[in-house]
Formats: sequence, structure tokens, C-alpha cells
Amino acid sequence: MRVVSSIRELRAMLKEMRPKTIGFVPTMGYLHEGHLSLVEKAKEMSDVVVMSIFVNPLQFGLNEDLEKYPRDIERDCRLAEAQGVDILFFPPVEEMYPPGSKTIVSVKEITECMCGASRPGHFDGVATVVTKLFNIVQPDYAFFGMKDAQQVAVITQMVRDLNIPVEIVPCPIVREADGLALSSRNVYLSPEERKQALVLSRSLKRAQEMVECGERDATVLRTAIESVIQESPLADIDYIEIRSYPELVPLEELRGDCLIALAVRFGRTRLIDNIMLVASQEDIACSVR
Amino acid sequence: MRVVSSIRELRAMLKEMRPKTIGFVPTMGYLHEGHLSLVEKAKEMSDVVVMSIFVNPLQFGLNEDLEKYPRDIERDCRLAEAQGVDILFFPPVEEMYPPGSKTIVSVKEITECMCGASRPGHFDGVATVVTKLFNIVQPDYAFFGMKDAQQVAVITQMVRDLNIPVEIVPCPIVREADGLALSSRNVYLSPEERKQALVLSRSLKRAQEMVECGERDATVLRTAIESVIQESPLADIDYIEIRSYPELVPLEELRGDCLIALAVRFGRTRLIDNIMLVASQEDIACSVR
Repeated sequence: MRVVSSIRELRAMLKEMRPKTIGFVPTMGYLHEGHLSLVEKAKEMSDVVVMSIFVNPLQFGLNEDLEKYPRDIERDCRLAEAQGVDILFFPPVEEMYPPGSKTIVSVKEITECMCGASRPGHFDGVATVVTKLFNIVQPDYAFFGMKDAQQVAVITQMVRDLNIPVEIVPCPIVREADGLALSSRNVYLSPEERKQALVLSRSLKRAQEMVECGERDATVLRTAIESVIQESPLADIDYIEIRSYPELVPLEELRGDCLIALAVRFGRTRLIDNIMLVASQEDIACSVR
Repeated sequence: MRVVSSIRELRAMLKEMRPKTIGFVPTMGYLHEGHLSLVEKAKEMSDVVVMSIFVNPLQFGLNEDLEKYPRDIERDCRLAEAQGVDILFFPPVEEMYPPGSKTIVSVKEITECMCGASRPGHFDGVATVVTKLFNIVQPDYAFFGMKDAQQVAVITQMVRDLNIPVEIVPCPIVREADGLALSSRNVYLSPEERKQALVLSRSLKRAQEMVECGERDATVLRTAIESVIQESPLADIDYIEIRSYPELVPLEELRGDCLIALAVRFGRTRLIDNIMLVASQEDIACSVR
């Protein structure tokens, strides 16, 4: 595995490798099995796998956890190399945002709800850095985890709107054995918070079962989710949303591709989780995507 | 010359041609010698020349001239072919902006002054469509006329900020024998307006002579320009600006690369013109760029 921090060097390296297909896994580092599953998928689909590790300041709000976001580049290098990453791009902030940067990529509407409502400017930061990374790496495929379902919707929309020549490959959420969705931020949790954080996946599982049994009413489902989460005294609900996917239109009644998404705070740690369902209307059958 | 209106077809065509170098001339059509000079430069620098003709609705304001913007695709085809364009990309609006488009590219600060102040949203429209065209054509070089000096500054900034892999080549303003800068909008002018429109280039010429004679005071220069323009009773000044280039910082005293730029209305027609000067401070010599 080659580790490179300069854009110019990375470009030169990639130029040599074309026309091999390039698979790209953008991350903020502090790698876990979720990231590694993206690498695995990238290896299946492409000749060369490029991973980036960049904690993007532009996507953090003023009172968010930019400073304390967990970092361990040595461990990340070992994990990435063991998983078969060919090139690790690890740029310093000033390489990505030299002084005088003035350009923002902004996706409207679908960034105003859910995490976009709780984190103003977050998705502008995501869209801008991902556009930059795509222009630097020029990958054939880019791999994103569905834990950030709204992020996947935003990036897919942006790629379509700006005609970026890349195929976005959404990959399934990876969970701990007990159901907790993997996240670099899980490391913030105290042992008690970690235990109570299981209400997220449990509440989604409960909603899924209800949908499988024929429930289509979003209010009923939201209430059921809420009551499961409230079993945890430490949980502070940010949002529970039931929306069409990928349009993110709020649903009163489940129909077609649906996203049930949560954001819940435990102390200062904000966790997200979601489930994608396909709700058919003909009969009450429902399958998990 | 091949004429293509679909993005997919254009991409397939260009894919066959790589790794030849691609020069790109984006236009809104109604071609004149200014556009053709860009093609000439493109032919010097690249193996394949792609021109686009697209009157981009996103860069027109609500009360602007989108509907009546001059169009003559047959004449444009003849001129482009005669000049040696290899591929003419002429997409319909719905090919560039399919229903549900939500993404905007926005360059901050340097878009807030001059034409950006008079035409709110204009440069967002320009930055967005140029990003799209760059992603579609993936050119090695792109050629822009310096008549739209602010546009060149904005696009150069955007390319740098978003790491777009293209080299922007600014090309000199082309003028009629009597000094009027070529513009598709000149066709709007009545014979009397056309005659009086010469005050634009004349006022810039006057400013240039003053700078060559040692004048460095922006207020003095602006007053001189204003008085030349006011010789035309039909002229209605939108702005006269003296700024550093490409940063577009207002100057009280000329120093280094300077842009003197004008926008003036004649009836409902808004014309722009400018001159770039390098003002040295050591002696009072000054050269036209």
C-alpha cells in the first residue's frame, strides 16, 4: 500500500495506473468493519482501490466534534493495508483547503431535513469535499455506507446533477453482534450509554416487524419507535423520520422504497441509524432491502 | 464536424478519441469572431476541439433576456465547422437540467461585486453549468474570452477550489475595427446606440493612456472614464470598477495586475467591456496585458 498526502503525487500515481478501473472509498478514518466492508466491495468491482482519510472541517458545525473526532492514522494504515487498499490518500487540511478557497457545492431541498436540519451546513461541506475528492481521484466507482442514508441520497443527487462521471455504490450497514450500527463515534460512549444505545437498532427492528405484519401508518410506526427509544433514560431523540427514498419526501403512509431514520443523542454523542424497507401496497408483504 | 445533442452520445464519442488532448470552447452560440478566436487557440493547443452551444437558463435573472437571447444554430454550425471545430455539443435544456435538479456550485466573495451585484445568481448559474460541462467533456483545456473578465476569475477560482482537472486558458478580447468589443448582444443595439456604444472602449483607452502617463489614482481614473461615457446621452452607467485581478479587490491606487471594468446600458441592452493593466510601482511605466 502506498500512502500519499499530496494531490499532485496522487494524480501522478493514478495516471500511471489508468486505464485500470479505480474504486474509491472516502472516509474520515478511525476505521471499523463498516469501512472495511466498503473496501471489500471496492476490491470486487475495481482493479485499484483508493481510500481517503480526511476529517473534513467543512462538514462540522461550530459546536460539533471536529477537534475531538477520533483519529489513529497508524492503526488505520495497518487495517487499510491488511484489507487490500492499494493507495491511501491522507491529505493535510491545507492541501484540501488552501487559503482563499471560496467555492461551495450545495444540494438543495433533500439537505434541509433530518441531519441537514440538525446540522446546518453539514451537507454543503460533504458535497464540496466529495466533489473535490472525485475530481482528484477520478474514480470509476465510489463506495458509501448506508448508515449515512441521507448522505448517500445527497451524493447520488449531486453526481447526477453535476454529471460527475462516477458510479455511486451504496453498501449495507454493518452492525455489532448486538445490533449497534458501527460508527467511529461509538468510541465516545460510556459503558452505560453503549448498553442503552441498543434502543436505536431495537426500535428499528420493532418498526420493521410491524411493517412486515402490515402496518403502513407512519404515525403509528413513529410512536412505536419512540416508545422503544424512551426505554433508555439516557436517550435524547433528535429525530425519527419516515420518508421516501431517495427523494426524502415525508410519508404519512408507507409505500415503495421507504427510509426509517433516527438520530439520538447520548450525552454529547449523537448517533444515527436507519432501515430501508420496500412497502408494497398490493398485499401487505414487505421485504428488507 | 459532428453535431451531438445527447450527453451519453458525446461521452461515447470522446471516449473513442482519448488519449488525444481535448480543447473545449463553451459558448451560448450566436457566434462571432470572439468565439472563433477561442476555437483558433483551442486548435493550436489540442488535438480535438469541442464547442458547446447552450443558452443556460440558470445564469439569467427573471427580468433578463433569456427568451430573446439571439440564436441561429444553422449559421453557428457553418461558422464552427469552417473554423475547424470537431464536435459541436448542442443539448436541449432538459438534457442539461432534467426535472428535479437540485445542485448549485457557488463561488463566494468575488461573485458579489460588479456583474454579480447587478445580476444576482448569475455566477451561480455560470459556475454550475461550467462544472457540468467540464464533467461531461472532461477537457484538457478550456478557453474563455477576457471580455467576461469576472467570469474568467470566477471559473479559475472554481477550478482551483474544486480541483477540476482542466487548464483554463483566458483569451484576449476581440474588437470591431472601431473598438467595440464583440458580443452576441451587440445585435440588440439600434444604429444610434451602436454608434454611441463606442464610448465604452474609448473611455477605457483614455484610462489606459492616463495610466501610461503615470496616473495611479483610481478615483481620478474613474472620473475620467465617467466623463467620456457621459458624452453619450443614451449611456446609463451600471458600474465602473477598478480592481486587482484575479482577486477583484477594489483599488484606490493601481498596483500590479489591475482590471478596469465597465457595464453600461443602452436602452434595454447591457454591454460590458474592460481592460487589464499591469501597473508597476517602481517607475511609472505600465504595459497592457
